[in-house]
Amino acid sequence: MATYAKRRALLISSSNLHGFGYLEYCTKHIKDFLGSNTEKVLFVPYALHDRDAYAAKARAKFEDMGYKLDSVHEFSNPVEAVKSAQAFFVGGGNTFRLLKTLYDENLIQEIRKRVVEDGIPYIGTSAGSNVGTCSINTTNDMPIVYPPSFNALNLVPFNINVHYVDADPTSTHKGETREQRILEYHEVDNTPPVLGLREGCMLLVEGDKAVLQGETGARLFTRGEDSVQYSPGADLSFLLKMTS
Amino acid sequence: MATYAKRRALLISSSNLHGFGYLEYCTKHIKDFLGSNTEKVLFVPYALHDRDAYAAKARAKFEDMGYKLDSVHEFSNPVEAVKSAQAFFVGGGNTFRLLKTLYDENLIQEIRKRVVEDGIPYIGTSAGSNVGTCSINTTNDMPIVYPPSFNALNLVPFNINVHYVDADPTSTHKGETREQRILEYHEVDNTPPVLGLREGCMLLVEGDKAVLQGETGARLFTRGEDSVQYSPGADLSFLLKMTS
Ligand SMILES: [Ca+2]
Ligand SMILES: [Ca+2]
Repeated sequence: MATYAKRRALLISSSNLHGFGYLEYCTKHIKDFLGSNTEKVLFVPYALHDRDAYAAKARAKFEDMGYKLDSVHEFSNPVEAVKSAQAFFVGGGNTFRLLKTLYDENLIQEIRKRVVEDGIPYIGTSAGSNVGTCSINTTNDMPIVYPPSFNALNLVPFNINVHYVDADPTSTHKGETREQRILEYHEVDNTPPVLGLREGCMLLVEGDKAVLQGETGARLFTRGEDSVQYSPGADLSFLLKMTS
Repeated sequence: MATYAKRRALLISSSNLHGFGYLEYCTKHIKDFLGSNTEKVLFVPYALHDRDAYAAKARAKFEDMGYKLDSVHEFSNPVEAVKSAQAFFVGGGNTFRLLKTLYDENLIQEIRKRVVEDGIPYIGTSAGSNVGTCSINTTNDMPIVYPPSFNALNLVPFNINVHYVDADPTSTHKGETREQRILEYHEVDNTPPVLGLREGCMLLVEGDKAVLQGETGARLFTRGEDSVQYSPGADLSFLLKMTS
């Protein structure tokens, strides 16, 4: 059985929050997470179509924070780039495109191994947080491409719903609310809990500890139980104890 | 090359519209479409978890309209039920669950054959309209189960986005707007047009003719072009001419 003692992940709901610039509200969390031993971050831009533009945007922000940034799409051998990475930053966009490309480039097992076995820190935002979990079954994105599986990096044994929003009681729209969508997922047998991370919120995972950070909190949906609201600072380590 | 002379489909955005009961706003369209020669409709309830309850709800409404209704899940041999159906009604819910079950029950080719070759009328609402098109790549639903393909019944050679909504300019939410999601799809090579059907709107397909019905209109997204707004009554037959 794998030990997760070295695992470190910062799973952020969204890179953007109303009233803030790109990654601005979580700058301190990212710097605290990476610390001063990290010199360079390996960026994974696959969730967006224009990888060059996305890498330039991420590079500017990480250089601002004091880190160098390479983008995995700039390497002729992405697997080698992952093998020598000091830290990962997987950006948001379309979750299906991101996961399919990770499979196409044979990076799923490599990234997982680096995080779980080598203790390489993993930062995800939005789609990047979705692929950090056991599967992308709870993404909000449109299925624009067909990945070979919905199984993902499985750094944690539960699902995350990013950009989580409670229902708007004044809405006249008849599409499902986010909660209804998650409840549909839990109609499927043996589905794990879903942590609905509001924009402005993130989960810090270190070994077998998980703590909610940020300002906005999260709602946890567990199959067959009432959903539970958690505030920033909440200890969610129990979510890591499920067998995955 | 297939001829589509017999094809008849009524692809409805949603069974519900604010201020109306179940299928109420489109009752007249359904009755006009089925006409007086149809005695009985075969219902496909696979998009929802509770098939018995869903069939009861659909049956009550169709009996109200003067039609008998069988639900395909009540047959020990769903393929045989499809082979003898006079009309199909495929209800909404979760598009991934619906499509996966259609594959699991070997109904994709059977339903397609009945509609295209035998002229059996097809009514879809929401997820039922999505699976009537070439693929489910533009569903809004959460990918709660993994279907063997995103390819669908391909009764029409383009995509539909049901429950289509324009962006709310006052929103502070940072998840993608519906338009942004469809534009992400069109970043993929060779993707067909996407017809965004607003709630209260439907597409009537008869042979090689397609007309927009209902009250609310639709927005058409074509790869590499500006999107175009269409009003009820618009002739969209050109969408059927694309090679599929
Ligand atoms: Ca997204
Ligand atoms: Ca749905």
